Amino acid sequence: MSGYEWAIGCAQEDIETPALLIDLPAMERNIARMAAFFADKPAKLRPHAKTHKSPVIAQKQLAAGNAVGITCAKLGEAEVMVEGGIHNVLIANQIVGRQKIARLAALARQAEIMVAVDDAANVADLAAAARAAGSSIGVLVEVNIGMNRCGVEPGDPALALARVVAESKGLRFLGLQGYEGHLVMLPNPEERRQKALAAMQTMVDSRRLIESSGLEVKIVSGVGTGTYDVSGTVPGVDEVQAGSYVFMDTKYRSVGIDFEYALTVLATVISRPRPDVAITDAGAKVLSYEFGLPQVKDLPGATLKKLSEEHGTIVFDSPNRELKVGDKVELIVSHGCTTINLHDRYFALRDGRLEAVWPVAARGKSQ
Amino acid sequence: MSGYEWAIGCAQEDIETPALLIDLPAMERNIARMAAFFADKPAKLRPHAKTHKSPVIAQKQLAAGNAVGITCAKLGEAEVMVEGGIHNVLIANQIVGRQKIARLAALARQAEIMVAVDDAANVADLAAAARAAGSSIGVLVEVNIGMNRCGVEPGDPALALARVVAESKGLRFLGLQGYEGHLVMLPNPEERRQKALAAMQTMVDSRRLIESSGLEVKIVSGVGTGTYDVSGTVPGVDEVQAGSYVFMDTKYRSVGIDFEYALTVLATVISRPRPDVAITDAGAKVLSYEFGLPQVKDLPGATLKKLSEEHGTIVFDSPNRELKVGDKVELIVSHGCTTINLHDRYFALRDGRLEAVWPVAARGKSQ
Repeated sequence: MSGYEWAIGCAQEDIETPALLIDLPAMERNIARMAAFFADKPAKLRPHAKTHKSPVIAQKQLAAGNAVGITCAKLGEAEVMVEGGIHNVLIANQIVGRQKIARLAALARQAEIMVAVDDAANVADLAAAARAAGSSIGVLVEVNIGMNRCGVEPGDPALALARVVAESKGLRFLGLQGYEGHLVMLPNPEERRQKALAAMQTMVDSRRLIESSGLEVKIVSGVGTGTYDVSGTVPGVDEVQAGSYVFMDTKYRSVGIDFEYALTVLATVISRPRPDVAITDAGAKVLSYEFGLPQVKDLPGATLKKLSEEHGTIVFDSPNRELKVGDKVELIVSHGCTTINLHDRYFALRDGRLEAVWPVAARGKSQ
Repeated sequence: MSGYEWAIGCAQEDIETPALLIDLPAMERNIARMAAFFADKPAKLRPHAKTHKSPVIAQKQLAAGNAVGITCAKLGEAEVMVEGGIHNVLIANQIVGRQKIARLAALARQAEIMVAVDDAANVADLAAAARAAGSSIGVLVEVNIGMNRCGVEPGDPALALARVVAESKGLRFLGLQGYEGHLVMLPNPEERRQKALAAMQTMVDSRRLIESSGLEVKIVSGVGTGTYDVSGTVPGVDEVQAGSYVFMDTKYRSVGIDFEYALTVLATVISRPRPDVAITDAGAKVLSYEFGLPQVKDLPGATLKKLSEEHGTIVFDSPNRELKVGDKVELIVSHGCTTINLHDRYFALRDGRLEAVWPVAARGKSQ
């Protein structure tokens, strides 16, 4: 129960604001297009749920085919996904801390759970918790393929940690993870392609090294929306963790990724102080802007110039005398992942009518 | 019931992360100091709850004295405050839209509610809703005192709209609001002082104009943490809407405001990829950074260099071999209002022990 059953069927312009809107046909086309891309590829999708934080949308991504499971960033997100019926979840980060590791081991009794590691002491903690819980946790060794965030170095350090995992009762060594996050937004497509190929080759080389040592590597996982069509075609890469494609945003569009915009924030004009200015009720508490300001949709000559905490300031190229206090405007988000993280629910529209209201079920599940 | 009763009394280092921490003694000193400032001033406090979004903290601000009520940014916040026992609430923005105005009129049956206006059509809508609900809504005419966001111009436009309000059955014209938000963060204290005095004088001049027309002006409200000791002492200014002082943040500190830091985010080190780098589990989904990156607390030589969505990257001046995976670090927030908006609850500490867990009750109440 969303608490919004009464609103289903209402027109878009009757939705209270600020509201996070999904253009359902555009989202469905994005999901179908990405799934179709992997129909004839060795790699398959593991869509990243950190973007949408919704088991409802995760289920649609799995139903579209060519997907092996879901990726999460946080344990709390994974718990929400399992509760929402997802049976195969990779937590693509390190899970550290006694209570969290106990939760992880418990979750692994309910579903196929994998986690990333880059530290032998953490591996020992995970193994002990799995044994105590009577569960088995799948493990990917995270490899630093150039982003310089988490991960062991490729080659021998990856092999060494893989051996530690393989020898740890309670854990199953399944393979490697590496994310070319430093490359997915490179603006030059050819540079992005070359560097992504090189980064993925580094990980595949580590795969081969580990395999030559006698350990089986079932899974090499990584890749984002900016590189799915490059990294996702490298032989030896098995899983593509793309997330942003489901809704797209102006940041990914700015580097040439052409999925359709499916996510906007609906705002109400609350003040028209001057003919060239409109102030809305949607500020930085409902729209992130670390990747640039959102774009005004379908309002020629209008530019969002500023987000303060509670207000947006739209400026027109020339005086606009049509837009009134109470009118609504849509803003195309600049970064889906962090904007969605500000909202409690999605308002999903088709043909201008509200078809569904879905909770952003894993919002706030940062632990 | 917070659901965290079991954790009360635990040590800070046992709190799961990322977690929003309050240093209770520091917060209490901030609240007491701001209240004391207004003991001998004509103006009184109307603390802004958009910062903390918590009726529990609002009650502490009122209990400290010299406060006339609470300020909110959004109707949804005001509803939470009234439900939390606050009896006098100013919504310092325009409330626009049929459903919202009906909610506002209903709320005005339960508590003393004031709202800002800058548009005659909006005034008519408010009045009609109040009559329909059998309530009475207090109204402040918002005046643009230089921020160029919402508000009518000072002088005759303010007087004209004040008359419209005063003649509207269902509404009570109570006075003026103006916010010198463009000045509160000016780095030069003397420039800030001079410009704030001039801006407030503009509003006081409008007050005198309206009074000379025969309308009573009971309230002139505005002012932020950056100008409370300047604007809050101008004769004819009645209410100070400061909010950030309760927790402070590094942005306000950077312009010389010296309330104590009382808000941090606790994070866990999840990776030590190199001796000079530590990666934490607290990224941009739990720490805002539009006002600059948060500061690492009590860890000499450590600087937070980057926030990605789920990770923080801390870099040390020289190799650090003490900090281990699993250790915890505190980050002093750079902007309290938008960071708090990312969290569901506060973990309130005294002497290193968890004393209380409070919901960020109005988080997400953006409508």
